[in-house]
Amino acid sequence: MKLLLASTSTVHGQKYLEYLKDDIKEFFKGVKTIVFIPYARPGGITWDEYTEVARKAFEPLGFDIRGVHEMDDAPEAIKRAEGVFTGGGNTFVLLNTLYEKGLIPQLRDRILSGMPYMGSSAGTNIAGAGIETTNDMPVLHPPSFEALHVVPFNINPHYLDPDPGSKHMGETRETRIKEFLVFNNRKVVGLREGSHLWIEGGNVELRGTLPTRIFSRDGIKEYPPGEKLNFLLETD
Amino acid sequence: MKLLLASTSTVHGQKYLEYLKDDIKEFFKGVKTIVFIPYARPGGITWDEYTEVARKAFEPLGFDIRGVHEMDDAPEAIKRAEGVFTGGGNTFVLLNTLYEKGLIPQLRDRILSGMPYMGSSAGTNIAGAGIETTNDMPVLHPPSFEALHVVPFNINPHYLDPDPGSKHMGETRETRIKEFLVFNNRKVVGLREGSHLWIEGGNVELRGTLPTRIFSRDGIKEYPPGEKLNFLLETD
Repeated sequence: MKLLLASTSTVHGQKYLEYLKDDIKEFFKGVKTIVFIPYARPGGITWDEYTEVARKAFEPLGFDIRGVHEMDDAPEAIKRAEGVFTGGGNTFVLLNTLYEKGLIPQLRDRILSGMPYMGSSAGTNIAGAGIETTNDMPVLHPPSFEALHVVPFNINPHYLDPDPGSKHMGETRETRIKEFLVFNNRKVVGLREGSHLWIEGGNVELRGTLPTRIFSRDGIKEYPPGEKLNFLLETD
Repeated sequence: MKLLLASTSTVHGQKYLEYLKDDIKEFFKGVKTIVFIPYARPGGITWDEYTEVARKAFEPLGFDIRGVHEMDDAPEAIKRAEGVFTGGGNTFVLLNTLYEKGLIPQLRDRILSGMPYMGSSAGTNIAGAGIETTNDMPVLHPPSFEALHVVPFNINPHYLDPDPGSKHMGETRETRIKEFLVFNNRKVVGLREGSHLWIEGGNVELRGTLPTRIFSRDGIKEYPPGEKLNFLLETD
């Protein structure tokens, strides 16, 4: 298994995927064409428009991008892909489309047999066990919240610390994740923007410049960048 | 139809429901016992604990509170209720429990035949057509996102304006609601904290101190407090 799971595609003040350039080059080394899954449609843009965004970021790094929708047979495209990147947007729209197209089993199989998979934001979310810790609005009703489940934990991308000065009474991210834990016994990785997980075989490495926050029924713990988080792959 | 739909139960620096006291007294005039629906379980507290919170707020106003779970037959309790209040918490947990208990048709029927219904936050959300514009985490998978649908629009409680100084790359509330509109053609009322809708017969009045924001495929419009928003009840 080889996964690059990024909290966000873009950090403040930079271009799309710019901060991840070196990691991407290293991660997809040996891959010529990456299949792009544009189904999350950020802001409702079309699959074509979104694929162009990805193409502009990957071509200068030496990779060809093909939108999965550009191919006649999407499950066949996943079966033959050398590598896959799923972009961010709305996690419900993304997961719902993957179910509609019947792509979940193919993607899961390919990832488990070693095809490199990269995700950002919603694309990272769906690599987890389920999408129950997304921040997105549930604009469509997918048949299930179970996701690719190639790792046994859930992810909260764009993890945001509570703002001590806020007068807003809506729940903080921490409160929401604790609520998740009341109803589900599963670890949650709160990935701050700029953080990403590099998973290869049984190794889980936290990359980026910020610590990450891991929530479980045993409590909350922070881990610094560079830390090995291999225990995340253990199933309880 | 008689509805009091509040964005939040609590405004900053005040006690639970304190800012709504006068409206509540007027709204439930003539009612002795209010049936409380505690299923949204904010922070995962129990139904009993949550019912105590509601009781402490309503008893000083002259109303008895009975938790719907305290009665042997929940659908029968809704059938006989003089008035219902649904508290906030997690909208997915709330809606899922209403489906599990088979309470949706009873509640809808009673509201449509005039029983006063009050909601705050998640309890307001479920009065709308669907819960697709909740801010909550989808910690449980309800069989459908369709809600009580006693009004034809959706509600976004705790509506929050974009923070121009933010460096966070997660979507603003406005972006999320616009995304909803790409996939659904339905009006969305963004209710800021402290705002509430008083709906009686064909009248929709915006109460509170803040303007409200209404989103549709025709654009975004702000309406000041005191404004009549009867057009919201029209189905397209």
